[in-house]
Amino acid sequence: MELTVEVLPIMTGGSRIAILSEGSASLLGVHSSDRIKIRYGKQEMIAIANIAPIFPHNRIGLYDETAKAIGVKEDETVDVLLAPLPESLFNVRAKLRGERLRENDIVTIVRDVVERHLSSAEIAGFLTALSIHGLSTSENEALSKAMVATGKKLDFGEGPILDKHSVGGIPGDKTSMIVVPIVAAAGYTIPKTSSRAITSPAGTADRVETLCPVTLSTTEIKEVVAKTNGCLVWGGSLELAPADDLFIQVEYPLGIDPMLLPSILSKKKAIGATHVAIDIPTGMGAKIKTRTEAYTLASDFVDLGKRLGLNIQCALTFGEQPLGNCIGPALEASEALTTLMGTGPPDLRDKAVSLAGMLFEMVGTENGQAKAEEMLDSGRAEAKLREIISAQGGNPKIKPNDLPIGSHSAELLSERAGKVMWVSTENIVRIAREAGAPKDKGAGLVLKAKLGDAVHKDGVLIEIYAERSSKLSSALELAKHLSPVVLSTKPAEKMVLDQVPEKLAHEKGFSLDR
Amino acid sequence: MELTVEVLPIMTGGSRIAILSEGSASLLGVHSSDRIKIRYGKQEMIAIANIAPIFPHNRIGLYDETAKAIGVKEDETVDVLLAPLPESLFNVRAKLRGERLRENDIVTIVRDVVERHLSSAEIAGFLTALSIHGLSTSENEALSKAMVATGKKLDFGEGPILDKHSVGGIPGDKTSMIVVPIVAAAGYTIPKTSSRAITSPAGTADRVETLCPVTLSTTEIKEVVAKTNGCLVWGGSLELAPADDLFIQVEYPLGIDPMLLPSILSKKKAIGATHVAIDIPTGMGAKIKTRTEAYTLASDFVDLGKRLGLNIQCALTFGEQPLGNCIGPALEASEALTTLMGTGPPDLRDKAVSLAGMLFEMVGTENGQAKAEEMLDSGRAEAKLREIISAQGGNPKIKPNDLPIGSHSAELLSERAGKVMWVSTENIVRIAREAGAPKDKGAGLVLKAKLGDAVHKDGVLIEIYAERSSKLSSALELAKHLSPVVLSTKPAEKMVLDQVPEKLAHEKGFSLDR
Repeated sequence: MELTVEVLPIMTGGSRIAILSEGSASLLGVHSSDRIKIRYGKQEMIAIANIAPIFPHNRIGLYDETAKAIGVKEDETVDVLLAPLPESLFNVRAKLRGERLRENDIVTIVRDVVERHLSSAEIAGFLTALSIHGLSTSENEALSKAMVATGKKLDFGEGPILDKHSVGGIPGDKTSMIVVPIVAAAGYTIPKTSSRAITSPAGTADRVETLCPVTLSTTEIKEVVAKTNGCLVWGGSLELAPADDLFIQVEYPLGIDPMLLPSILSKKKAIGATHVAIDIPTGMGAKIKTRTEAYTLASDFVDLGKRLGLNIQCALTFGEQPLGNCIGPALEASEALTTLMGTGPPDLRDKAVSLAGMLFEMVGTENGQAKAEEMLDSGRAEAKLREIISAQGGNPKIKPNDLPIGSHSAELLSERAGKVMWVSTENIVRIAREAGAPKDKGAGLVLKAKLGDAVHKDGVLIEIYAERSSKLSSALELAKHLSPVVLSTKPAEKMVLDQVPEKLAHEKGFSLDR
Repeated sequence: MELTVEVLPIMTGGSRIAILSEGSASLLGVHSSDRIKIRYGKQEMIAIANIAPIFPHNRIGLYDETAKAIGVKEDETVDVLLAPLPESLFNVRAKLRGERLRENDIVTIVRDVVERHLSSAEIAGFLTALSIHGLSTSENEALSKAMVATGKKLDFGEGPILDKHSVGGIPGDKTSMIVVPIVAAAGYTIPKTSSRAITSPAGTADRVETLCPVTLSTTEIKEVVAKTNGCLVWGGSLELAPADDLFIQVEYPLGIDPMLLPSILSKKKAIGATHVAIDIPTGMGAKIKTRTEAYTLASDFVDLGKRLGLNIQCALTFGEQPLGNCIGPALEASEALTTLMGTGPPDLRDKAVSLAGMLFEMVGTENGQAKAEEMLDSGRAEAKLREIISAQGGNPKIKPNDLPIGSHSAELLSERAGKVMWVSTENIVRIAREAGAPKDKGAGLVLKAKLGDAVHKDGVLIEIYAERSSKLSSALELAKHLSPVVLSTKPAEKMVLDQVPEKLAHEKGFSLDR
């Protein structure tokens, strides 16, 4: 059917959508969310049809980028016909029925996701089925390879290329900012790409951004790494695994994360990593709740790594409370810097040198932890971070106190004396976000009492920082309401976690930050 | 944040979508598919945010109907803020985790689907989880009630109100066109609403439309039923269960049908039915493959009916081959008319009088089948159908041959002699659709050899009819390729249904026509 193009002056961020009137749709036999083939001269394109009750019958609406993709202009004519269902959709349906997918099946899906031949509803069905049925190692392998194949790559030449990654789930985890300079200071290449916060108060990219730019081009990244052996940049703009970026957009509202393994390892593969240390924070307050889950995930990481040619070691780490004391982009950057300067919190220091040590031993060093401590205590790691800051365009002389912490602050005091029995990481996250993190870089909180600490009546449990007084007061109010730091005398008062049929709380804490 | 409205001159068919620039989105802390609250004077609205890489920072794009819904015009200013995740989404997430949902949880979901507060991706996640985890009777009950509560109702006064429904799955099933006049002729009220074909060659609405209009207003429907005791109309425009119409849009591409029970019974409830006969075609060629499945589904229908105050009887019917001989809207209407005139195929006649008889016995008649046969043989049923045709605005004197059958026809001949062992309903459907059905009302096919029939070499297996010669030839080609009628000598030659890892076929036959 010949239709005249109406270009809609909107960039939708890639999705190939065409708008048809109900009239022309029924003439074409097109139902909502069917695919149509649009022919313009020698060009052909598949688009997903949106059927609009009121739209000119002789016209087809194309979003700006859809029109550009096929090179057609306003008022030009295109030939439109009903396209057959893509093979990838039959593979999606097979997964919904619980079938195992073979490598080729998965290739069709990942390719059609990247080429926008599958709608967000179809992608959601696929991801939900994966999250319920689980993935076989072969499926994880095929997904990882397909996501690498459809993305860009970074080449840092001769190996070994080291990397570190946390599956996430506890607030205040600024370990990468310390591990990277330690490893780079020892002369190893560690090009670290990180994500921004989606559901947490700060991602590594948000933290580092308070010290220097993190949105670098691939050329700039190579220069930084060539100069310093390392980098701390935002991975989001590098298109290392564009399919995963699209999957995450759908996973986020649904609160599922079925592609944890391929999502992480595809990006490691894309930057050419050879040795990867994976941190699995484990505890009721973390994404991974039990040791059993953690051990299963760890061995899946190792197996998948082998299949992808990656040498992987996993560390199960204590995930019952936030790491260090500071939560929020600037506060965490400042704490990381302090730790590199020798006076940080012991749990943060221990985790950083342990993970760095693990990496050193993976590449053949004996007693890696001692080497990591040497890098830290000698000040070489601090010097290295400052090199990296400078190479990425920041001020290498920056001091912890130079960081712009929110000027509005308040304290949450303890209503009684006691020992800290439990810190609700989920509530800590909610309070820090209420204060403005991660959007307000200076917002967040400092945890003044951690597990086992003795607290006096009216002792400070939490200091809250915000850039706006309104945010500060609502965060303080929330903190008082949630009382995230639970003292030894308290648990007996709240043994009931939830009540059925009268549910109190719905959502389980969930973090989707890679 | 204050933004100026840009109205996008498109009706999207209801979805509440607002377009923001990346800049204002990140200022608002809005991620793609987050919800935003739009305030205009006293009006408030929730919309789902589409983040466009290139869009004026100070503007918000609202589709025509979204703007109308809140009454704002081009270039006016609205206040925009990030809206919290709706409670319904937490209930969707709970179902993804496999939790049972309570009545209130389901009410929030159905309401937010109708009010467009859930995106198609979130609805797809919900439906996929339902399709994998299954629904409890309580969940089915809550879904049915919530869908009725959010839809329109029809009231035909004093009961009993009879109805008949098929779960679908075999081509050529024109039983309703015979059951309705039989039941109405006996003086019972049977206001039959039907769907159009989505994946099949004809729905009842498509068939009846070749005899008279089927898109009637609720007032017109009441007049027709008052005059004739019955009707045969399209249910799609009546908004009896608008939530279900939206669910189906998402189920169709995914090829799932988790809401079969609530989808069907909510509409029966909405038209005030008191006694419902449910036809469950059972066989490898039908939607329900095994007797076990059929018996389970049947008892689920009965249980759910009780909870909804509906008296339900299910009939497990033979579903190994098409019903009657004709497939395609006009061809089937003609066959139904012939059957009412006394000379139709025996399987169609038997099924119609059995189901009508079942309904008669449900309302207290003894030997219902005899009564149904009497209505048919006395010609009263035929007269009743003509009354209904006339009341709906068609020609009551229409003869089977008056119906506009496609002028292009061809025959599929048997390559050998033998007895018919198997008829592939799935392939019959593909051939009829290739010929143009249901879009071309005159297109379809006539099955000349059914199970057990003896066929000579060069005997006619199928007659194909099309409105366009191009469609005819491609349908004939497909028929030769698929050879849907399998003779006794043939099966041994094709024992392998599929091959792994080299898959031949992907898709299982699936019908989503209610």
